[in-house]
Amino acid sequence: MHIYNLDDIKKTIEPRALIKSQEEGFVAYSEGRVVVPPVGYLHFEEASGDCHIKYGYIKADDYFVVKIATGFYKNPEIGLPVGSGMMALFSQKTGDVEALLLDEGYLTDMRTAAAGAVAAKYLAPKHIDRIGIVGTGAQARFQLEMLKSVTDCRDACVWGRDERKGEQYKSDMVGSAFSVQAVSRIEELMDSCNLIVTTTAAREPLLYASQLLAGTHVTAVGADAQGKQELDPQIFKVADVRVVDSIPQCVDHGDTSHAVKEGLIEKGQLVELGAVIKNPELGRTKEDQITVADLTGVAVQDIQIAKLTYEYLTHYKSPIYRDRNRA
Amino acid sequence: MHIYNLDDIKKTIEPRALIKSQEEGFVAYSEGRVVVPPVGYLHFEEASGDCHIKYGYIKADDYFVVKIATGFYKNPEIGLPVGSGMMALFSQKTGDVEALLLDEGYLTDMRTAAAGAVAAKYLAPKHIDRIGIVGTGAQARFQLEMLKSVTDCRDACVWGRDERKGEQYKSDMVGSAFSVQAVSRIEELMDSCNLIVTTTAAREPLLYASQLLAGTHVTAVGADAQGKQELDPQIFKVADVRVVDSIPQCVDHGDTSHAVKEGLIEKGQLVELGAVIKNPELGRTKEDQITVADLTGVAVQDIQIAKLTYEYLTHYKSPIYRDRNRA
Repeated sequence: MHIYNLDDIKKTIEPRALIKSQEEGFVAYSEGRVVVPPVGYLHFEEASGDCHIKYGYIKADDYFVVKIATGFYKNPEIGLPVGSGMMALFSQKTGDVEALLLDEGYLTDMRTAAAGAVAAKYLAPKHIDRIGIVGTGAQARFQLEMLKSVTDCRDACVWGRDERKGEQYKSDMVGSAFSVQAVSRIEELMDSCNLIVTTTAAREPLLYASQLLAGTHVTAVGADAQGKQELDPQIFKVADVRVVDSIPQCVDHGDTSHAVKEGLIEKGQLVELGAVIKNPELGRTKEDQITVADLTGVAVQDIQIAKLTYEYLTHYKSPIYRDRNRA
Repeated sequence: MHIYNLDDIKKTIEPRALIKSQEEGFVAYSEGRVVVPPVGYLHFEEASGDCHIKYGYIKADDYFVVKIATGFYKNPEIGLPVGSGMMALFSQKTGDVEALLLDEGYLTDMRTAAAGAVAAKYLAPKHIDRIGIVGTGAQARFQLEMLKSVTDCRDACVWGRDERKGEQYKSDMVGSAFSVQAVSRIEELMDSCNLIVTTTAAREPLLYASQLLAGTHVTAVGADAQGKQELDPQIFKVADVRVVDSIPQCVDHGDTSHAVKEGLIEKGQLVELGAVIKNPELGRTKEDQITVADLTGVAVQDIQIAKLTYEYLTHYKSPIYRDRNRA
């Protein structure tokens, strides 16, 4: 049994390998080869905190994975990050815990960003004029970084509700591969970008269908729970291709759910990302199509990134702790 | 964040403190002060394995606890124990993981044994002639050891389906505080014991009501899942007091469930162990009464033993790993 901490885990992320492994995970999920029971949940009223326990496995694989993720929203008041957590890998043959990855939520951020890159790889137009990032937090940065592996475009535009945070994002990105412009009106972003990623915790639409350029692809990663919403539901109606990471999950609480509830689209008009990866003709077929991807996060992504990270770590890093008694 | 391994955890168990802390847990549970969502479950057909994820917290307490426990029934074929697992303590204020207890299932064994001692403390007759242990496995040993703290009786009798294992149990107990006799017929045990603990994975009754001596207390700890059964359901009918660790759980899959399904008793005739601890008149009131306790295991027991163990460890042991970055 091996234990690794965040410092070492951070050194393992290789975007291309991660994107490939996430793709394989989405395919396995959409082919029904993944066992993922309902998410465990604890809520702490007073501390404004919650804990999600996601667990599952790919059938006939080596490992199963349990992820414990916390979000405590008053933490910043005492100088702590909101999110933390860890992942545990267990053997499917013996039940032994093989590795603990004390990633403090980092691997969840990375697999979410990698899923955005997968969506762009299969759905964005061939020629990307400019990448639009909606939101200015950590995920807004990771998404842009991860897109580097799937597009040559290095021109980006960022918008956030708080203009200062947009400027901060821009200055933080100096020295990155990207030339970033921060804009004060989201319309400026939508007027020039044909690949847009939304990464906010919004509870009302930020992007409207009427403002989308022809040929735009939109990926929304913010709506991971009931009540959250980043996209005008009309976007799902006008889109030529509507992709989701998980049909049941997106219909339940993704951005997609608003469009389905309002009767703008039907469940049958959705296609899972895993199905598109396996059969790319289900995705974009023309440059001027509008495509949308709703990513709510599925446990197979955690399974895939935990396995990949552990495999890398066993080859290149010493664990902070190794159990002598067990294999 | 601190990590401790089995070697250090084993040194922390102090039976009296453990029994007291389990009592407090049962009381909190029966008073509705414990949040325990449904257990998470994964099954592995080919390896004949399963994984249970139990999690929850006592309201307004310092910690919440997630326990991951595995049982892989082909492990002995390759020289590994069936069960393994770990417990994680998190702060209810910040969500940070405070401690990982890599106990490999040991703490579950201990809290189960301590619950048996709690049941005996409140339900056994004042004068215990002889302790009867049904089953010859690890839990059969832990139960007897833990009873040392709640009774002066040092005379015990063991019965198991496999006579050789009974003899092995007896010889393993040489040097313990107990004088142990191994018997080949369970009737011999029932003829002389007025405190009986059943610890088997039986799926059919082993103990029959007609064989019980007046004044006997029976604790059953083996029926932790659907289909398991150690007691003749008539025992619940003839008993004067019927105690369970959790009414919903025991009615669902405990030994109690068979008696309820057969219409021998009603749910209203059950009393929870926590209620008996708080109000001992709900338990045994006369020496010649027959009493029964059905213990299926509740997550509050894990919460309590994890907290107690961690508190001891922080005072007396160095962790195998301490995170420098976080508190």
